[in-house]
Amino acid sequence: MSTDRAPAPSAELLARAARIRLACFDVDGTLTDGRLHIADDGTETKSFHVHDGLGLSLLRRAGIAVALVTARHSPAAELRARDLGVEAHTGIGDKRACVEALRGRLGLAADEVAFMGDDLTDLEALSDAGLAAAPADAQRAILHRVHWQSSARGGEGAARELCDLILAARGQAVADAAGARQ
Amino acid sequence: MSTDRAPAPSAELLARAARIRLACFDVDGTLTDGRLHIADDGTETKSFHVHDGLGLSLLRRAGIAVALVTARHSPAAELRARDLGVEAHTGIGDKRACVEALRGRLGLAADEVAFMGDDLTDLEALSDAGLAAAPADAQRAILHRVHWQSSARGGEGAARELCDLILAARGQAVADAAGARQ
Amino acid sequence: MSTDRAPAPSAELLARAARIRLACFDVDGTLTDGRLHIADDGTETKSFHVHDGLGLSLLRRAGIAVALVTARHSPAAELRARDLGVEAHTGIGDKRACVEALRGRLGLAADEVAFMGDDLTDLEALSDAGLAAAPADAQRAILHRVHWQSSARGGEGAARELCDLILAARGQAVADAAGARQ
Amino acid sequence: MSTDRAPAPSAELLARAARIRLACFDVDGTLTDGRLHIADDGTETKSFHVHDGLGLSLLRRAGIAVALVTARHSPAAELRARDLGVEAHTGIGDKRACVEALRGRLGLAADEVAFMGDDLTDLEALSDAGLAAAPADAQRAILHRVHWQSSARGGEGAARELCDLILAARGQAVADAAGARQ
Repeated sequence: MSTDRAPAPSAELLARAARIRLACFDVDGTLTDGRLHIADDGTETKSFHVHDGLGLSLLRRAGIAVALVTARHSPAAELRARDLGVEAHTGIGDKRACVEALRGRLGLAADEVAFMGDDLTDLEALSDAGLAAAPADAQRAILHRVHWQSSARGGEGAARELCDLILAARGQAVADAAGARQ
Repeated sequence: MSTDRAPAPSAELLARAARIRLACFDVDGTLTDGRLHIADDGTETKSFHVHDGLGLSLLRRAGIAVALVTARHSPAAELRARDLGVEAHTGIGDKRACVEALRGRLGLAADEVAFMGDDLTDLEALSDAGLAAAPADAQRAILHRVHWQSSARGGEGAARELCDLILAARGQAVADAAGARQ
Repeated sequence: MSTDRAPAPSAELLARAARIRLACFDVDGTLTDGRLHIADDGTETKSFHVHDGLGLSLLRRAGIAVALVTARHSPAAELRARDLGVEAHTGIGDKRACVEALRGRLGLAADEVAFMGDDLTDLEALSDAGLAAAPADAQRAILHRVHWQSSARGGEGAARELCDLILAARGQAVADAAGARQ
Repeated sequence: MSTDRAPAPSAELLARAARIRLACFDVDGTLTDGRLHIADDGTETKSFHVHDGLGLSLLRRAGIAVALVTARHSPAAELRARDLGVEAHTGIGDKRACVEALRGRLGLAADEVAFMGDDLTDLEALSDAGLAAAPADAQRAILHRVHWQSSARGGEGAARELCDLILAARGQAVADAAGARQ
C-alpha cells in the first residue's frame, strides 16, 4: 500500500495528470480486490478500502469530478459512492459511452478525463482517457495499455495512489484532511 | 494475479488445451481462496473473483461448455453459476462420475474435458481429464498430478489463467469483451 | 499453503506424532486467520478453510479424536465443528482443564494429545501436550514453546499440515478421500 | 504478524512507551486492514484481529486506559470495544480534540498518551501524542511523522505490537493471560 517503491512520475505523466477534471474508477478489481463475497442467501458484498475513500474525497474537495463506473448492478457500489459524495454508474454495458456522456455533460475534453480499470471490459474506456491507469494486479492485457500503474493492488490503495498523483501534479498539497470522508 | 511469471506453455500443453470442449471447475480453493466465511447465524459466504468470472464467460462465448462441480451443498455456488450463465453441480460425492455424465450428455471424448481442482477430493476427476489443472496453492499431492498449474492462487485469478490458456490454444483472441458477465 | 518449503520432520517429531490419539485445535488464529468479521448488526463471522476441514475429516476417519477448543463463545465454530463431525468446546476460560477432561474421558495419556494454538491463551494447553504445534504466524512467545510449526499461516492450511504430519507418522497414506467432508 | 524482523526498540522509544497511561487507536486501517465490507443490503462489516484484541485486554489489565477513536460512525467498532471492555468514540470529526478531552478527564499529561493511526485524518492526534505509532502499511505521509511503526500491517497484529512495546517498557511481563478477552 505504500508508494515507497514507486519511481518518481515522469514530466509527461505529471502533465497528463495536471489536466484531469474528471476521474472515473471501475469498481470490482479497482476499488475492490476483485472478490465478490456471495452468501447462501444471495447477499453480495464488496470490500472497499478507506485509503481509496479518502483519496476520492480529497479529489472532490479539489474540485475534480469523481465517478464510479461498473458493469455490475451493485447496490453496494451505489452505497459506497453516496457515502463518499461521488457519482455511481452501475449496470453499465458500455463504459466508454458512459464516460463520454459524463464528459459531455461537464463540457470537458478527452484529455481531461482519467480512467482506472483492471480488465478487458475497461479497455475501450481506458483507450479514450487522457490518463489511463490500472492497479498493480490488473490483467496483463490492461497493464500493457495504460499510461501508469499503481504499486498497490486493487482494493488496497491503488485508487488512492492515482488521487495522490493527480493532486501532486496540480501542486495541491493536502493541507487539511480533517472531516473528510473515507 | 498477473501471468507474467508463467513460462510459455509447451506445444504438448497447447495441444491438450486446443482440444477442450468442456471445462469443469471445483469451487472451494479453485474458484475461491478456500475460505468458508461462516456467520454466527449460520449463513455461509464464499468469495469469488471477477477475473475468473470474465474468463468463464469468455469460454462460454467461445462455445465451450463450462460447469462448476463441488462436493459441498452451496446455494452461493449455484447463484454464482447462474450469474455467469454456466452449470453448477453441487453436493457431488463422486466428481468423476458427475463429469463423466456431463461428458456423455455432450457426446465428448475424455481428452476434450478440462478439470481444475485443488485437493484430494478432485484427484479422480483430474486423473480422467484431458487437461488436468490446479491453482498455485493446491495441495502438494494435487500439484504432482496435474498437467499444468496456474501462477495465481485459487480465487485470485487461477481459473482465468486456464480460460486464457484454452482460448489462446484455439487461436481465439478475445476481440470483444463488452457486455460479458464477470 | 503448500508444504513444499517445510523441512522433513525429524525422527523425534514423527515419534511424537505417531502416538497422537486426540488432536485439539484452537479456533481464532489457528483454524482461521485470526480475523473477526463484525457487522454493524452484531453478526460475527469467521473464515475457515476447506484444506483444514478435509484434514480434520481424514484424522477422524483414521480413528483419531478431534476437538475445537476456543475461549470465545462462537456459534460459527460450533456450526463448523458439526459440519465436520468433530467436537466443539467454546467459551472455554481454561483450555488446559478442558483438554485434560477430554483426555480423561477418552482414557488417554498426555503424550497421546496434540494441541495447536497461536497465542498466550493457548500456552498452558500447549505445554501439556505430547505434540505442541503452532501456525507460522503465531505470536512469537508461542513459536518459542512448540515442538513444531506449520509453514502455512493460521486459517490457510496450518491445521491441515498437522493432520498430514500425524497421518504420515502413522504410516496411513490417504487411499480414498471420496465423500470426506471439507 | 511476528515481530521477529523488528529491530530492538531504542532507549528513547522505551522511555516514551514507559510513560503511557492512555492508548488510543484509530479503527479502519489500524485495528482493521482498512477494508469496509459493504453488502448490497447496506450492512457494513469490519475485520478485527484476535491478536490485537488480546493486546488491548492486556493493556487494560495493566491499568492503562484504552480507547478506539474513529471518524466513521460504526456500530461494529462500538461492539468490538464493548467486547474488549474498552471505550469507543465513533463519528469523531476532530480526533485531536477527542483525545485531548479524554486526556483531561483522566488528568494525564500529553506525553502519557499513545496514538496509533494510519492516514491523514490521524495526523493532528499523532502530532500531539507522547508516543505516535503507525502500522507498517500506513500512508507514507504518516510513516514519516511517527515515533515508531509496527512490523505488522493494520488489522494483522499492528496494535498488538504497540501493546507489547508498552508492556515491555513498563517491565510488566505477561504472567497470566488466562481468561483475557481477545
